Parts: sequence; C-alpha cells; structure tokens
Amino acid sequence: MITLASDFGSPYPAAMKGVVCRRSDARIEDVAHDLPRQDVRAAAFWLTQTLPYFPPAVHCAVVDPGVGTDRSALVVRAGDHALVGPDNGVLLPAARELADEVEVFRWAYEDPESSTFHGRDVFAPAAATVHNHGVAGLDELPRTARTDSFVDLWFPDPTVNRDGARGEVLVVDDFGNAITNVSGEELAAHTDETVTVNGRRAPVRRAYAGVEAGEPVVTVGSHGNVELAVNRGRGDDAFDVSPGDAVELRW
Amino acid sequence: MITLASDFGSPYPAAMKGVVCRRSDARIEDVAHDLPRQDVRAAAFWLTQTLPYFPPAVHCAVVDPGVGTDRSALVVRAGDHALVGPDNGVLLPAARELADEVEVFRWAYEDPESSTFHGRDVFAPAAATVHNHGVAGLDELPRTARTDSFVDLWFPDPTVNRDGARGEVLVVDDFGNAITNVSGEELAAHTDETVTVNGRRAPVRRAYAGVEAGEPVVTVGSHGNVELAVNRGRGDDAFDVSPGDAVELRW
Amino acid sequence: MITLASDFGSPYPAAMKGVVCRRSDARIEDVAHDLPRQDVRAAAFWLTQTLPYFPPAVHCAVVDPGVGTDRSALVVRAGDHALVGPDNGVLLPAARELADEVEVFRWAYEDPESSTFHGRDVFAPAAATVHNHGVAGLDELPRTARTDSFVDLWFPDPTVNRDGARGEVLVVDDFGNAITNVSGEELAAHTDETVTVNGRRAPVRRAYAGVEAGEPVVTVGSHGNVELAVNRGRGDDAFDVSPGDAVELRW
Repeated sequence: MITLASDFGSPYPAAMKGVVCRRSDARIEDVAHDLPRQDVRAAAFWLTQTLPYFPPAVHCAVVDPGVGTDRSALVVRAGDHALVGPDNGVLLPAARELADEVEVFRWAYEDPESSTFHGRDVFAPAAATVHNHGVAGLDELPRTARTDSFVDLWFPDPTVNRDGARGEVLVVDDFGNAITNVSGEELAAHTDETVTVNGRRAPVRRAYAGVEAGEPVVTVGSHGNVELAVNRGRGDDAFDVSPGDAVELRW
Repeated sequence: MITLASDFGSPYPAAMKGVVCRRSDARIEDVAHDLPRQDVRAAAFWLTQTLPYFPPAVHCAVVDPGVGTDRSALVVRAGDHALVGPDNGVLLPAARELADEVEVFRWAYEDPESSTFHGRDVFAPAAATVHNHGVAGLDELPRTARTDSFVDLWFPDPTVNRDGARGEVLVVDDFGNAITNVSGEELAAHTDETVTVNGRRAPVRRAYAGVEAGEPVVTVGSHGNVELAVNRGRGDDAFDVSPGDAVELRW
Repeated sequence: MITLASDFGSPYPAAMKGVVCRRSDARIEDVAHDLPRQDVRAAAFWLTQTLPYFPPAVHCAVVDPGVGTDRSALVVRAGDHALVGPDNGVLLPAARELADEVEVFRWAYEDPESSTFHGRDVFAPAAATVHNHGVAGLDELPRTARTDSFVDLWFPDPTVNRDGARGEVLVVDDFGNAITNVSGEELAAHTDETVTVNGRRAPVRRAYAGVEAGEPVVTVGSHGNVELAVNRGRGDDAFDVSPGDAVELRW
C-alpha cells in the first residue's frame, strides 16, 4: 500500500497517482491533499494523527516550500513502514510515532522533469520504487544512502505545574478545534470542573455535547491533547487563538 | 467493499481508512467527507442519493453531533447491504431505499480510545468486523443485539393538489440547486410551462440548459424531486431559499 | 482501471463510483471532482496535465454544461486509453497528449434516468462497458459509431519573436499560479534574468523559492509552460490576471 499526503489541492495529486499506478500495482489510499499550504509543522502534526492507523505501507508526504532548491529527498524507515518526502522535517514526527527507532536515508535524484512539482517527478516514483523493492531492503537500492544529517522537527513541550499548564496551539482543524501541545492526561483530574484558558473560564467536558450548542468547552481530542472547542461551533474563534499562539491553562 | 461517509472534512477520514485497512482487506470507496456539518437530515438525504447505486457493501456513515454522549451505535441490515453509524436517524432513510425491510441492531462498544472521534474508534472497526463476518451473519456477532428502539428519521411529505404543491427545501447542493421534497412526477404535466414558486414565475424545463445562462429554472433533478435552479448559476440565491424553507408551487 | 474527473463537487461523484462498481470490477482512481465548474476549456487543460501520467485506462471526464440537451456522448480512443464524456471538446486535448492519432466514436444512449446527471446515468455506465469490453474492441460495441463530426477544442497558440511572447492565461491553479500558453522553452535562455510581464518587471527563476517569500516570480511550471507566480503567495493577484487575460512577455 502507498498512501499519499500533500498540500497540492486539486488536481495535481492525480498526476502523482498516475505515476504510482504506472510503476507499481500498490493499492493507493489518500491521506489528504489539503494539508495547510506550505506549513511543514502542521503537516507533520497531521501525519502523526493519521499514518499510525495504517497497516505497514509506504507513505509519500509532500509539503515542500523548498521544491526546486537543493533540499534533499528523504526516505525514512520506521519499522515496517517507510516515509518518502522532502528533507524539511515533515516526515520525522510521524516516523517516531510509527517506531521507536527510525533510520533516515537520502534519496538521490537527478534532473526531474520539472523544478516545481517533485511530488510527481521525484517523490511518487521514489515511493513506487521503495514499495516494489520492499521496506526491508531499502539499504540495497542504488539511490539510498543512510544519513545522520537531516532537518528534524519536534513539537514544543508545554510546561506543567500543579496550578496549570502553559503550551501553545499546534493546529486548528476543519471544525475550528484548536489543538494544543498539552497532554490530555494533565486535564484528566479536572473533568467536569471549570478551568481558565488565557484568563477566560470554560468548562472541561469529555464530549463536545457536554455543553450546550454554541458554548465553549475544553476537552481532550482524538489526538490525546487538550483541545479548545465549541459545541457545534468554532473553538478558535471563541478562544481567539491561532496556530502558534500561547495557551495558559489554570485549574 | 466498505464505503465511508462523514462530515469530518480532512484529514480525519484518513485515520478511519487506516483502521479499516488494518482490520480488513475490503476495498474502500469514499462517498463524501464534506457532508453538511453535524446536519443529520442533510446527511441522511445524501446517503439516499448515493448508497443505492453501490453493489452490496458495508456503508459506514458518521455525522454524529452526539459523539461522546451515551447515544448508541447501530448496524442496519438492508438486504445485502449493511449501514454502520450513530443512532440519530442518519442511516434509516438510505436503508429504506436499499431494501423494503430493514433490521436494526445495536452495536455494543466499550471505552473507545477517544470521546470525540468515534468514526475512528467505534464505527470504522465495527464496519470492518461486519464486512469480514458478512452481512448475512450479523445476528451471530457478539456485539450485535436486534432492537426496535432507535432514533428514526423521515423526510416531510409535501401536500399536493390540482393547483400546485406545498413542500420544503430539503438540501442545497454544491451547485446551488435547491432540492425540494416535491416529487418530480407532479411536475411532469407542466414541462415547458411556467409555474410560480413562492409567488415568482419561472419556466419548467427538462434541462438546466433549457433556459439562458443566468436564468432561473424549475426542473426535476437526478434524485427525482423538483429542484429550483439557475442555468450556470445558483438556484438558492435566485429563489431566495435555504434548507428547511417552505416552497409553494402553483401551476 | 477507470479514472473519474468532473466538476460535480460532492457527493454526486459517489453515485458514479457506485454505478461503476456495480457494472465492473475495475479499479477506480479519482482525478478531481472540483474542476472549474462548467468551464470546458479549463477542464480540458487539467485533463492534459493528469491523464497522460496514468497507465492505460478508461478515463470518464464529465464537465457538461449541456447536460440534458441533444449534445452527444463520445468515446475517444487514444492508443491504449479511452476517454468517455460529453461532445463539447473537453476530451480532445488530453486524447492528443495520450496518442498521436485519436479516433472518435459517438456513444448512443436512450432515456437516461435523469436529464441532469448524465455522469451517473450515461457516462459512468459507458465507461464501465468500455472497460469491460476492452479499448481494442471499441468498434464492435453496439452503441459505438465512428464519427468525424464532433466539437473540438484547441488551446490558442502564442506569438513569439526575439523580443518576447504574447499569449494568454489558460488557467489559475489552486496555489494562484497563473499558467500561460507560452512554452517554457521560450524562457529557457532568460533564466535568472528579469523580464517584463504586461509592463511590470519580474525575475525569472527555476523554482518558486528562487525569490523571497511574497515576491513575484516568472517560472516554468510542471506543465512546461510559463507560469506567473509568487513564492508562497498568489501569482494571479500579484500580476493581476485571470484565465483568458492576455500576457505580454518581453525579455
């Protein structure tokens, strides 16, 4: 199986699918092609939320503001999975979710057909080759070279004490839920209590529907992190936060 | 085959796909993941317009404002098809399109990984299990219990007489076509005539292109219902209607 | 394999998928269902950018402002590929990319279930039939009749001389890149120089990232044509152009 993720919108991903289908009989499943545009950190986050649910596969993930520059292409091995994409950190957080140890390979490529669409010209062919050859034999491919030098990406750690936590908004999802980097475990002792978020009071509930429609709620999202939400509304608006904003929780 | 429908936008459905792929080798086809958000009636309508075209399959459909509350999970058997989703009525109208008799089963689940994403944690695993076990043997699964107590959903009936019909707008599609609950058969005798819609006159035509671009037209849509449209434009704007609004047709 | 492309948005394409799955066990891959609405020329362009990357397949492409009128349905054979869609020119440019010689067949159909959704009622069934029968045997099908009389579509040719080129914007992609009909080969001699575009100066670079974020850039896109772009921004805004607008390049 080959999964495809990108910020290419439509219809560019179809060319990637065609390239994969020409070179491999792998089943293709789309992860998303509307990842936040050229936002490597957000893309890395969403890959951590989706790829670990798949069976062993080759995951081709392309959010690549540096396309056409001399940034490298990488293949990352994570257990039975491989991730293929640009060397800008986008692959690493999900790889670490998939396996305790990850190995990073540089993928050599020359003269792609275009300098603007390496998803089609570099990464899709690489994914098909890795799939056909097998993740176990990645070292033997003529284009791979193991490396310790690559762009890494870590999400920031929150600070937590007995009175609360200070973190930040990692991403806002399509529903308007503001997903923070604070672990939901910190909130577990405060379910059904009221906390303050950046100075404003809000109830902690297990489900969005734990408050009336239109009311703000602090909950633990499907990612296991503290999430600022509104039942049937947008949490980012109600809490006035955007990705990267600081979040001060006090209980 | 397992079909997936939801209002989850992107990229959450990818986690559902991963869960299905891990537990089953079923082919997956997406119905839609941008169903009108948390709008159970609109979702139920769109399922009636899409699921009956599929061969026998397990249809996992999740529009679920009550996620995380104590609402049940259902599996509905409709002939060779099964529908899996929350107990809020969303599955029933499509099930009745698929078969004359439907059987409803409660699906027991405990302690999902999250209280906000049962699409991933409850319904996708249930769909994979039902698929693997086969729709015919649904009764034998340890998690199923037949029930007569569930939330049902019926679309309202229009009133029709010799002078016209009074109904309502069920949904507005992406094109801006306002789809009513009035059967197109009522309109058949008036093709190429002019009718009034909420007091304004509009031509009845078999095709959008039966009027000039930008002109309003009353037609019978692909669902067999009366539709308020504009050739190459938006019918909801031209007729000033939204889902739920009354529609008075006079011929 | 059957590919599907349309401007139907969501969820109508699911009915097409269902119809195909009922009639064929072909693998289905989506090209796009958000092609610019009822814009035959833009759709034709995007098909040229995507279909040639696929292995031999039946490509069902429906952008069809004339649905329900007496316009014909076509099947176009292009080498090992077949294209199925309305007789409005949308299929021809991609067919010519797929093969040096193309053969056009009229596809006879009667009484579709609807007069507004031939994607479901005419073209999806036709694609399944062509797939099952095989592209080679297209002549033998009872519904096909070879024809020389069909609506064709050609993209306009630019005029090029030693001082520059005069062309037009064919389409604007999701990123805001304005894609012209001027071949990138004309620009090759001017890489890293500055040119004027409709009187305003802009640098020519091989990659978007060849200029600072927010800066305009003239480049050669993945289609091989001159593209007006902004690094991490929208070229159509910066160069103030829309599809169909004239573009005067001077070097």
